[in-house]
Amino acid sequence: MADFSRLCIHQVTLLHQWDMADFLAGMRRHGIPATAIWRDKLKETGAAETRRMIDGEGLAVTSLCAAGLVTSPDPISAAAAMDEVRRALDEAAMIGASNLMFVAGGVDPHEKSIEAARTRTLERLALLAPHARAVGVKLALEPLHPMVCATRSVLSTLALANDWCDALADDDAFAIALDTYAVWWDPNLAAEIARAGRRLIAFHVNDWLADTRDVRLDRGMMGDGLIDIRAIRQKVEAAGYTGYIEVEIFSERDWWRRDPDEVVDIIKGRYRSVV
Amino acid sequence: MADFSRLCIHQVTLLHQWDMADFLAGMRRHGIPATAIWRDKLKETGAAETRRMIDGEGLAVTSLCAAGLVTSPDPISAAAAMDEVRRALDEAAMIGASNLMFVAGGVDPHEKSIEAARTRTLERLALLAPHARAVGVKLALEPLHPMVCATRSVLSTLALANDWCDALADDDAFAIALDTYAVWWDPNLAAEIARAGRRLIAFHVNDWLADTRDVRLDRGMMGDGLIDIRAIRQKVEAAGYTGYIEVEIFSERDWWRRDPDEVVDIIKGRYRSVV
Repeated sequence: MADFSRLCIHQVTLLHQWDMADFLAGMRRHGIPATAIWRDKLKETGAAETRRMIDGEGLAVTSLCAAGLVTSPDPISAAAAMDEVRRALDEAAMIGASNLMFVAGGVDPHEKSIEAARTRTLERLALLAPHARAVGVKLALEPLHPMVCATRSVLSTLALANDWCDALADDDAFAIALDTYAVWWDPNLAAEIARAGRRLIAFHVNDWLADTRDVRLDRGMMGDGLIDIRAIRQKVEAAGYTGYIEVEIFSERDWWRRDPDEVVDIIKGRYRSVV
Repeated sequence: MADFSRLCIHQVTLLHQWDMADFLAGMRRHGIPATAIWRDKLKETGAAETRRMIDGEGLAVTSLCAAGLVTSPDPISAAAAMDEVRRALDEAAMIGASNLMFVAGGVDPHEKSIEAARTRTLERLALLAPHARAVGVKLALEPLHPMVCATRSVLSTLALANDWCDALADDDAFAIALDTYAVWWDPNLAAEIARAGRRLIAFHVNDWLADTRDVRLDRGMMGDGLIDIRAIRQKVEAAGYTGYIEVEIFSERDWWRRDPDEVVDIIKGRYRSVV
């Protein structure tokens, strides 16, 4: 009998197939103990009602995903973005998530300075820390793949996430989320996972397809690509991580189009064989 | 009067518009002093005839581009790939190029180990060094963007290129080529450019488009994207680089479809304004 006690399926993996109620019921029906909640879906249902539904199904929640995009050089835009992060922290607290997935934001097309965007992100994270501590939700700094640094996140390596955590020096407000897709190419991955250690609060799995067709929405099912997921999981666990293994697949061409029960069955099979 | 004495246009930038003869004549007509030669085009014309045509137009040649793909775990495939690199080194020598752009190769889909692919690449580079020295052509180690590490090159960062040069310890056989597109996201870029120093033998410019649609063939014209190209050029020159500034744009949707004389005129304009 396979042990799925640490398997988590991120709601975005079934983005187009199920609404909140069907998704949460599906997780319970399939014996998946935990989920991460996608914020666009949360907005449809509302945080209080979502919490009631999660508790009703007896599920654990890891993260609310995602908020951020705080890199703007315009102070008014930046203030609005930070208020939005604070609202997301409140929502994460309401649904019982220990952390909010933080996506930094991209490069301003007029300024064209990735260094300036990084400097501002770090400054703004420091300003968000009091609210995170107040509501008891950590900001999970998630390095994203360098191919989305222009538009989604200038936090492009685990080393930079570790550097930021060092600079912020606030383990009650900040943690690190690791995604196999974002970091598998990194020559420094093993050393930086060890360095992250207990900062690791989430571990996302999925795969890199050889014929990748889109920089954001073409992730693969574990086992269908080039990543040695088990080797990365072993490094993450050797660093002290004991949390859920979270399946997060953005897949416009394939997994978002399939029967959701089939997707969950395949996830369970691949979790056993390659994760 | 603008100074184009350091401007180089890589042949691949006009891949679909011009054959070898038209391309070389076009470069001379537009007053472009140097070019890099695309190996598929060279095969159509032959190395000896290409050299005659280049000399006839009075052009300088930087690199022959590209050869490599030596990561296979299968010894027979690897030996064939290495022989192909040696042939490319011979061709580079014949056309008067100082270096051959080396593209490592990707990850084996069965083995799924990027670490093993990197280890083998370094071993095989050492075996290629005697031939490079014998023909007087350097292998230019070019980090490619992490988004092509699965299929094109496991050499994903400038730091790794510097590490490999340290390990190989053979400045007569190895150098480093830097491409803005491949490295602009790297938090360690400034330090690693300084570390590369005189190893830098080529500097490629082009831009990252916000709406990138393909992981290989959707590069932008300088100024159309998010990269601060001039800032990177300044770092490269501060490290001691005095060579050509080489425009290399793979662009299935745009620049490969335009009138080639218009493309060259726009390159000259952007070279002045943003490079």
